[in-house]
Amino acid sequence: MPYIPLDENLPGITGLLNYRQDTALPIRQLTQILLRGESTLTEGERELIATVVSNGNDCQFCTNAHTAAANVLLGETETAEKVKNDPDNAPVSEKMKYLLEIARQTQVSGKNVTSALVDKARNAGVTDLEIHDTVLIAALFSLYNRYVDGLASVTPTDPAFYDRLAGILKSSGYLPSPNRYAALNPEV
Amino acid sequence: MPYIPLDENLPGITGLLNYRQDTALPIRQLTQILLRGESTLTEGERELIATVVSNGNDCQFCTNAHTAAANVLLGETETAEKVKNDPDNAPVSEKMKYLLEIARQTQVSGKNVTSALVDKARNAGVTDLEIHDTVLIAALFSLYNRYVDGLASVTPTDPAFYDRLAGILKSSGYLPSPNRYAALNPEV
Repeated sequence: MPYIPLDENLPGITGLLNYRQDTALPIRQLTQILLRGESTLTEGERELIATVVSNGNDCQFCTNAHTAAANVLLGETETAEKVKNDPDNAPVSEKMKYLLEIARQTQVSGKNVTSALVDKARNAGVTDLEIHDTVLIAALFSLYNRYVDGLASVTPTDPAFYDRLAGILKSSGYLPSPNRYAALNPEV
Repeated sequence: MPYIPLDENLPGITGLLNYRQDTALPIRQLTQILLRGESTLTEGERELIATVVSNGNDCQFCTNAHTAAANVLLGETETAEKVKNDPDNAPVSEKMKYLLEIARQTQVSGKNVTSALVDKARNAGVTDLEIHDTVLIAALFSLYNRYVDGLASVTPTDPAFYDRLAGILKSSGYLPSPNRYAALNPEV
C-alpha cells in the first residue's frame, strides 16, 4: 500500500510519475537522453546498467522492469540474468564488464569507484563519455530505486506486466506519450 | 584528480554539469522545482534535506555546498550543524524532524522508509506532498552525491568557496544562468 494516494492502475514508478508530473518531466527527459539518446553503448547495454543498479538496491519493481527491457532489446534473457547473478560469466564485452562494475560500485557509493577500476576500464577501451554516462545512469537509478521503494509503490507479481511495460519502453522510450499506459493493464 | 576532463575552475558538481549540458538541464530543472518551486517547506528547510542526505552519503562537496546554502537561507549556522550531528536537539519543527528522518532513511535505502515512520510524520501534520517531495529530494541527492564522487570531481577545501556557491544558489537558484559561475573563482 503506497504511502501517498497513487492511481491503482499505475504501479511502481508509473504512478509516481503520474502523481507529480512537473517533477516527472525532467526525470523522464534525463532518462530518455541517457538510455535512448545517441551513444556508443546500445540501448540494451544501457538497460543492463539500469538493471544491475536496481538489483544492487534490491528494488524489485525496477529490477523486473529493466531486466524485461534489456531482454526485449537484446532478444534473449541470458545476459540480463548473468549480469545480475554471475557477472564473471556474463556474455558481454570486456568493456561492458568494466562499465557494469563501475555501475555496481556507484550504486554502493560514489567513493567506491576507484582510479584502479577506471584505469582497467580505459585499458579495455572505455571512453571518457562512457565512464561519465555509466556513473550518471547508475546515479539516476539510485534515484529511481529510492523513489519507488521510499513511497512503497506497488510491485506487480505477474511477469507479463513487466513484459508489457518493456514493450512500451522499447517502442515509446521514456518521454511522456499519449495513452502511454493504455496497454499496461489490458483487463482494465 | 577527476576521472574525466573537467574545467579546473569548476570543481564538484559545477564542472560535471558543464561537461554534459544536455543531461545537466533536466537535472537542474528537477532541482529548481523541488528546492525553489512552490512548497509548504521553506527553501532553507529543503536545503536541510539536501544537507542530511549528502552528509549520510559522505559526499563532502555536496554537504559543504548545501550546508552553506541552508545557512545563508536560514541566516544562522546552528540548524544545519545540528541536523547533521545532533538531530534530536536540532532547532526545527516536529514536522521537519520527521521529514529529515524520512530523508535519512531514503538515503540508506527506499525500503528503510517504514509505514510506522510515515504514520508518525502524519501525526505531526506532514502532508502527502511533503512526504513525496522529501523522498524525491533525498533520491535526487542520492543521484548528485554519486555523480560528484563517482567521477572524483574536485572538493575545494576553502570554506569561502562554498559561501560563494551558496550565494549563487540563493540569488540565482539551480537553473542555467549567464555567467553563472563568474563569482565562484574571484582570483581567476
